[in-house]
Amino acid sequence: MTTATVTTDMSAERVSELDNSHVFHSWAAQDLFNALPVVSGSESSFTDYEGNTYLDFGSQLVNLNLGHQHPRLVRAIQDQAEKLATIQPAFANDARSELARLLAEAAPGALNQVFFTNAGADANEHAVRMARLHTGRQKVMSMYRSYHGATTTAISMTGDPRRWPNDQGDPSVVHFFGPYAYRSAFWAADEAQECERALAHLEEQIILEGASTIAAIIIETVVGTNGILVPPAGYLPGIRALCDKYGILYIADEVMVGFGRTGTMFAVENFQAQPDLLTFAKGVTSGYVPLGGVLISDAVRDSFATTVYPGGLTYSGHPLGCAVGVETFAIFEDEQILEHTRQLGDEVVAPFLAGLADKYEVVGQYRGLGLLWAIELVTDRDTREPLVPFHPTAEQNEPMLKISAACKAAGLWPMLQQNRIHIAPPLIISEQDLRRGLEIIEDAIKEI
Amino acid sequence: MTTATVTTDMSAERVSELDNSHVFHSWAAQDLFNALPVVSGSESSFTDYEGNTYLDFGSQLVNLNLGHQHPRLVRAIQDQAEKLATIQPAFANDARSELARLLAEAAPGALNQVFFTNAGADANEHAVRMARLHTGRQKVMSMYRSYHGATTTAISMTGDPRRWPNDQGDPSVVHFFGPYAYRSAFWAADEAQECERALAHLEEQIILEGASTIAAIIIETVVGTNGILVPPAGYLPGIRALCDKYGILYIADEVMVGFGRTGTMFAVENFQAQPDLLTFAKGVTSGYVPLGGVLISDAVRDSFATTVYPGGLTYSGHPLGCAVGVETFAIFEDEQILEHTRQLGDEVVAPFLAGLADKYEVVGQYRGLGLLWAIELVTDRDTREPLVPFHPTAEQNEPMLKISAACKAAGLWPMLQQNRIHIAPPLIISEQDLRRGLEIIEDAIKEI
Repeated sequence: MTTATVTTDMSAERVSELDNSHVFHSWAAQDLFNALPVVSGSESSFTDYEGNTYLDFGSQLVNLNLGHQHPRLVRAIQDQAEKLATIQPAFANDARSELARLLAEAAPGALNQVFFTNAGADANEHAVRMARLHTGRQKVMSMYRSYHGATTTAISMTGDPRRWPNDQGDPSVVHFFGPYAYRSAFWAADEAQECERALAHLEEQIILEGASTIAAIIIETVVGTNGILVPPAGYLPGIRALCDKYGILYIADEVMVGFGRTGTMFAVENFQAQPDLLTFAKGVTSGYVPLGGVLISDAVRDSFATTVYPGGLTYSGHPLGCAVGVETFAIFEDEQILEHTRQLGDEVVAPFLAGLADKYEVVGQYRGLGLLWAIELVTDRDTREPLVPFHPTAEQNEPMLKISAACKAAGLWPMLQQNRIHIAPPLIISEQDLRRGLEIIEDAIKEI
Repeated sequence: MTTATVTTDMSAERVSELDNSHVFHSWAAQDLFNALPVVSGSESSFTDYEGNTYLDFGSQLVNLNLGHQHPRLVRAIQDQAEKLATIQPAFANDARSELARLLAEAAPGALNQVFFTNAGADANEHAVRMARLHTGRQKVMSMYRSYHGATTTAISMTGDPRRWPNDQGDPSVVHFFGPYAYRSAFWAADEAQECERALAHLEEQIILEGASTIAAIIIETVVGTNGILVPPAGYLPGIRALCDKYGILYIADEVMVGFGRTGTMFAVENFQAQPDLLTFAKGVTSGYVPLGGVLISDAVRDSFATTVYPGGLTYSGHPLGCAVGVETFAIFEDEQILEHTRQLGDEVVAPFLAGLADKYEVVGQYRGLGLLWAIELVTDRDTREPLVPFHPTAEQNEPMLKISAACKAAGLWPMLQQNRIHIAPPLIISEQDLRRGLEIIEDAIKEI
């Protein structure tokens, strides 16, 4: 038998030593990875054991929407733990019932039921299962340049290099090209043409794949890790129309963009698009407790009215996560989080990035909305050659590592993806902290 | 925008109304399912809104090993929430480091690294991925009569009716027959012969599938939901030998049986078997916070020393769950949970069930260890015809529904699976409560 010790007095060295010896890390080569020990967090910042404090411009993994250690979320956890820490999904529970109501009321259109999961990957897995069983079709279409999670079907739907070593997974996934006007796959001249051609290209692919074989099209409402790709006006309504035409379900993956990230509770609200299924996770609890889920249309729900839904999980609707979700809705209202997010995006980030684009040749494009933005760095504005190539080697990635080091030295933890700087701070960030962070990014860009 | 309300004052009627309107339930036909609202829990019991208290003989979903509302686990959640509720997996964290150490030290043999997940399904998904990439082979063998979770690869490995509607999932899973002496698939006369023939049969199947195509064999150390099937002595060491002979990895699924359920910290300790990968979840937190993981051998870990492991998740090693895991180890030691579990199994459950078998013809067999037992009910002891058939209709299931109703009326929430009564109370149950529960079960059996 081993000896359990209380962890409160552990030194940074001990945290690192045990981490290196015993913790196997996500998406990492284990010998080459060294995790910074973090001791505390507060609002938009976190602090390491040496007392260095970093502005968190990635909101951890774009999940910490209400910031570190929000006192009301901490209290919600503590109160629910005191009351009833856990109950299995087959019993009814007040926190779960209440969160389900809030989600159903906040969701666009008639998405009236919620299947709760642990996080985003399993939310997407279950959404696909519902679509397959509802339609009686097996195939799912997802975008190149996308991320949908790391379990088998979720990683198969993913359209980035993280899928490559997992390619023999779900055999019924087909990838298509989405709109990306800055690097058009359709030789489009502008956003409107990109939109039109992306939809025409997709329809052609639906026809060639066989519409009657396709259960669902899954799309991140704004593509997240793969580029903060904001869909052109008309694209998502066009997806809806294609789905209606061919009897396909439209799944909106809002794991990253749900809960205010784009300035509306769900991102589809920005684009007048109505999905049949909508998946969420991250922001529903700001990551304080693992929780995700699928919002379900009445039509899909009715397929499982008298037929058993063949899926489930031990922690579906865990009361601890649900209590945090309920409090999240209350905080959004009381602190006017959506208004704050839109205002910072429109009045601070957008003008600041416009200024960067004016000043620095290396800035090829910036794009985003709410508090979710990308700066795309290029070696040449005319050719748009990215500063580092797709899926760069460590050596090719050096310019981005320089930016990273400069930001960290100045007290900002940046979110860098390929040739892009992503900007996704907590939604509760103050204007002052936001401006400070943006200035640190400008200084880092200056150096290259 | 919707209105968020505090949930503390909700009536049972309101909890049910919202649950029926908005919560989509696991493994259920939504219109036919009505969830009992539960208001509180304490130690081995929980209570509904009408004040009915039930002894929890299924430990919720066989995860509540330390019972409801253990004050030290509640406190661990509250303290960690106060300190640092969340941090992403790429940072190091004291609670995560400490739990990884405790797991590695408690694990059998050299399983020195832990990849943390949200629960059991994703733990199994990632274990399979590691095995596939380590061996360069794609196929996985799993048992008929097994459950491994509900995401695509996990449900494909599952060997019970829950897989049937999900059969077009992971195409590289092959099912085999495990040992089940009471209903032998090998015409065996006794446990020893069952063991020998099950291994011979599996070896033949490995050869015919092509050993060089098989990455892993995954086995619940004691098969859980599908029958509390305790492997005969020699079976799991035989699996180890087959794996060594053919270069296959042995994955032990201890999601249900880990953390003391069988009287040892991990169930493989009962059977002198050494897996290459061991998955856990449920008991690591008693379900208070979603948490699971994979314990990894040095050899498998080394495959990802300088090559990126292509998998991950936002909540890998969530500090809230890890803090509960650390406290769980401490409670196991301080309260001598393993000793208590073994003593109750050996001195209370086993003799009581032997008495039932003597008294009632309907008891075909009983089996188990620690606090994990099954009573198999039959219409005829000689033919061993089950009281209700495999995958029964509602009508066929009536005798079991009668048992369920009788138990609930007497204050016990039973765990029934097909023709079996499973006995899996919290490990902290008192001898008095355990005897009371067993007597309620005897009374229910008497009625049929």
